[in-house]
Amino acid sequence: MTYPTPLADVAAGFHDGTVSARKLAEAALARIHDEGFTPGAQIFTRVYDAGARAAALAADHLRAAGVAQGPLAGMPISIKDLFDVAGETTTAGSVVLKDAAPASGDAVIVARLRAAGAVITGKTNMTEFAFSGVGLNPHYGTPGNAIDASRIPGGSSAGAGISVVKGMAVAAIGTDTGGSVRIPACFAGIVGFKPSQARVPLDGALPLSPALDSIGPLAPTVACCATVDAVLAGEVPRVLVPRDPSHMTFAVARGLPMDGVDDHVAAAYDAALKRLRDAGARLIELELPEIAEVPQLNAAGGFTAAESWAWHRALIERSGAGYDQRVMTRIRRGAEMSAADYIDLLTRRRRMIAAADRALRPFDALLMPTIPIVPPKIADLAADADYTRLNLMVLRNPTFGNVLDFCGVTLPIAEPGTLPAGLMVLGRNGTDHALLNAAAGIEALVVRRHGA
Amino acid sequence: MTYPTPLADVAAGFHDGTVSARKLAEAALARIHDEGFTPGAQIFTRVYDAGARAAALAADHLRAAGVAQGPLAGMPISIKDLFDVAGETTTAGSVVLKDAAPASGDAVIVARLRAAGAVITGKTNMTEFAFSGVGLNPHYGTPGNAIDASRIPGGSSAGAGISVVKGMAVAAIGTDTGGSVRIPACFAGIVGFKPSQARVPLDGALPLSPALDSIGPLAPTVACCATVDAVLAGEVPRVLVPRDPSHMTFAVARGLPMDGVDDHVAAAYDAALKRLRDAGARLIELELPEIAEVPQLNAAGGFTAAESWAWHRALIERSGAGYDQRVMTRIRRGAEMSAADYIDLLTRRRRMIAAADRALRPFDALLMPTIPIVPPKIADLAADADYTRLNLMVLRNPTFGNVLDFCGVTLPIAEPGTLPAGLMVLGRNGTDHALLNAAAGIEALVVRRHGA
Repeated sequence: MTYPTPLADVAAGFHDGTVSARKLAEAALARIHDEGFTPGAQIFTRVYDAGARAAALAADHLRAAGVAQGPLAGMPISIKDLFDVAGETTTAGSVVLKDAAPASGDAVIVARLRAAGAVITGKTNMTEFAFSGVGLNPHYGTPGNAIDASRIPGGSSAGAGISVVKGMAVAAIGTDTGGSVRIPACFAGIVGFKPSQARVPLDGALPLSPALDSIGPLAPTVACCATVDAVLAGEVPRVLVPRDPSHMTFAVARGLPMDGVDDHVAAAYDAALKRLRDAGARLIELELPEIAEVPQLNAAGGFTAAESWAWHRALIERSGAGYDQRVMTRIRRGAEMSAADYIDLLTRRRRMIAAADRALRPFDALLMPTIPIVPPKIADLAADADYTRLNLMVLRNPTFGNVLDFCGVTLPIAEPGTLPAGLMVLGRNGTDHALLNAAAGIEALVVRRHGA
Repeated sequence: MTYPTPLADVAAGFHDGTVSARKLAEAALARIHDEGFTPGAQIFTRVYDAGARAAALAADHLRAAGVAQGPLAGMPISIKDLFDVAGETTTAGSVVLKDAAPASGDAVIVARLRAAGAVITGKTNMTEFAFSGVGLNPHYGTPGNAIDASRIPGGSSAGAGISVVKGMAVAAIGTDTGGSVRIPACFAGIVGFKPSQARVPLDGALPLSPALDSIGPLAPTVACCATVDAVLAGEVPRVLVPRDPSHMTFAVARGLPMDGVDDHVAAAYDAALKRLRDAGARLIELELPEIAEVPQLNAAGGFTAAESWAWHRALIERSGAGYDQRVMTRIRRGAEMSAADYIDLLTRRRRMIAAADRALRPFDALLMPTIPIVPPKIADLAADADYTRLNLMVLRNPTFGNVLDFCGVTLPIAEPGTLPAGLMVLGRNGTDHALLNAAAGIEALVVRRHGA
C-alpha cells in the first residue's frame, strides 16, 4: 500500500477549515493500524486511538466555537517510545522494562505538545534504549527504510522518520544523543532538527547520556520543525524568516567528515553546494581540529557508555539476559571508566566546545554530509563486525554536533526516486533561531523532496 | 605589635579625600612586611610592592584629575595563593608547582579587581591545594589565628581572614569549596560571603572541585562583601538595602547542624537568635532531610576527592613526595571512584538541590552556627586522628551550602574579647542580592565586632 499524499499536505486543510482534525486523526490511525504493527518490522510500539480521537474532537469543537487554539491544534504527532506518558510504563524499545512502574506524569515535552493542541497518535519503535544509529530492534523488529524497505531506517528514532513519510503523523518527536533524530530523518528523506542540548527539558525522557541527550522534531519541512521545536522549548512559535543564501557565509567541512563519503552522497552533496555557490553564498573550507578530536574522546565509549552504565547497571544485574546483547555490550564499556577519566572527558569537552564555538563565529553555519553513506541493507548488518563498522560510520558526522554542542538541521538533498542523502547545517550553541532561519533559506535552494 | 585601626576604617578616608591611596597601600604593605612573612607562620606567600604602589598612585592621580573611578579604587585587597597573575607561577600553597609554567594571563577575578581600581597587595597563604578546613600548611607554616595565635586560623583561605583583621588588606578574596571562605572569616571574627556556585567565573583559579568551587570575599562588613562580590561577578555594585528583620521569616536548622555545638558557640548563637526574635523576626525550626544526606554523599570523598584526583593524578605521580601527605591522602580517595559512581553523585545531588530549594522557598534564609566549635589549638591537631576529626567538624556545616548550592554569609556574633563564633545565613541558589540585603539587616542586630 502506498500513501501518495503525506499527511502534512492534508494537514494544511485543518487551518483553512476544509479538513477536520477528526479526519486527520482517522487517516493517521488507519495508516498506523494498517502497517504500523507489521510483525517483525514494527513502526509503532503503541497507538492511542481513544486519546487521539478525543484530542481531535476537542480541536474541532474549539475551532467551531471560534476559540483561539495552540500552534499544533489538530496536528497528529508521534512520539518516540522513551517519553513518559502518565499511567503507562515507559519501555524505550526494550522488554526488560515491561514490568516497571508506570510513569506518574507526562514528560515535559508530552505535556507541552498536548497544551499546544497536538493529537498524539502513538509511540514509535526505536533502538533499545536509544543505543545505536542504525535502528535495529530484536524485540519489536526493525522497520524497513521508508524509501527502500530492505535497508535500515536509521536510528535510534527508527520509527519516527517512517511515521512521517507514511502519513502516520505530521511530525515525529525523537531524541538525539549521537544523531538519533538526524540519522532517521536523513534516511527517511525528510528534515530533522537537533536543538542546542539544553534548549528542551529532558524531564520524563528515559536517559541515554544526559550530557548529550537532546529532543527534537522530524518533519517534512524546516518550517514544520521550527513550529514543533518552539512548542518543545516552551516558546511561542516565531515567524520563520528564511535567509537569502547570497547574504550568508558557510564553513564547508574538510577532513574527517568527508572520509569515506560514497558516490551517491558525494554527488548529492556537491550538487547542493553548487546550488548555494551559484546563488551567491560564500563557501569557505574549514578543517576544525576539535572535530578530529571527537573520536578520541569517544574511544572508550565516551559520555554515552559512562552515563548509560550508571543508569543501567542495576537493571543489567537483574535482567541483563533480556537486553539486546549488542546494546548491552556498548553500555558495559562504561563499567571500565574511572571517575577521574570521566571528569577529564568533561574538562576536555568544555575546552573543545569553547574552541569550536570561537572558530565558527565568522560563519552563518557549518556544512557537511549528514551521513557519508546511503542506508545499508539490513542483511549487511548480520555480522557483529559489520554492525559495529556501519554503526560507527552512520553515527560519525552527527556525533560531532552532540559532543561540540551545536544545533543542527539535516535537509534531504538526493534526487527524488534515489536513495536518500542529507546536507547537515550546524550552528553554534544557543543560535537555534538563527540556524532555523538559515536552514529555511538553504532548503528553498537545495531540497529534493522524496515522494514529491 | 597590634593594629588598633583596621584598614577598612581608614579606607573610608580615600573616598572623602582625607587619605591618599598611596598612604593606604603603604600602611598595608608595611604590615605585610612587618608580620606577613613570619617564618613558620606565613600569612602571605608573595607581596606586590611595586604593583600595589603603582595602582595606588594611579588612583590618586585619577582622583586628583576628577576622573570617575571603579568601585574599588585605591582599596588594598589580598588574593588567595591559587589565583593566576600573569607571568607568575601559581603554587596554591604547594611547593610541587614551583617550577610550573607561569600563568599566561590574570585570572578573571584578578582582571576584574584591577579594572575596578583595586590595589592588589599580595597573595595569602592557604592549605595546600585548598584541601582542608583547618588551615595548616607544612611548607609555608601555619599562621596563628588572628584572635588567639595558638589556635588554627581556619582554612583553606587561612591567610585571607588574618590579612583583613591585621590591616594588610581592606578585603581578601578566597575560594569556598566546602567552607574555605566562611571558615577563616568566622575564625577571624569577620564577615565572609560564598556566592552561588556559578556566580563568579573560575577561569584562572587553580581548581579543587569545579562542581563546588566558588569565589568570594572576606571583609569587615556585609556592605564591603557586597561591593567586592559585585566586582567579582562582573556587575555594577548595587546600593545595599538592609532588610528589617521584623519583616523576615527564618528557618532555624535542627538536626545535624546542631550536633556537637560547644557551649561558647551555643551561647553566642542563642543570643543572636534571641535578638532576631526580640526584633520581631519569625523563627521556624526546620530539619532538612537533604542536609542529613550530605555526609552520605561525601562518604567516599564525594566530588572533591574525585575531581581533585582527576586534576592531580599526573602531578602526584611525578611529585607525590612533595605534597602535604595529609592532603594527598584525601586526594587519593578519588582514585577509587568509578565514572558510574560519580555520575550517580551528580544525579543524586541534582535531586537534593531541587528538594532543598523547594523546602526553603517560604523562608528569607536558613540559619545555623557557621562552625559548631571554637578554633581548636594548633597543637591539638598533631595526631592524624585528631586532625581528621576536627577537620570534619569544622567543614561540616559550611559544606551543606556547597553541596546544596546555596549562597551564604557568615556573621561574627561572639562577644568582643572572646573566641570567635559565627552565624551562618544561607539563601537559595541565585538569590545572592536578596541574601546580602537580608544579611545586612541581620548584621545590624547581631554582630559583635572583634577589635571594636
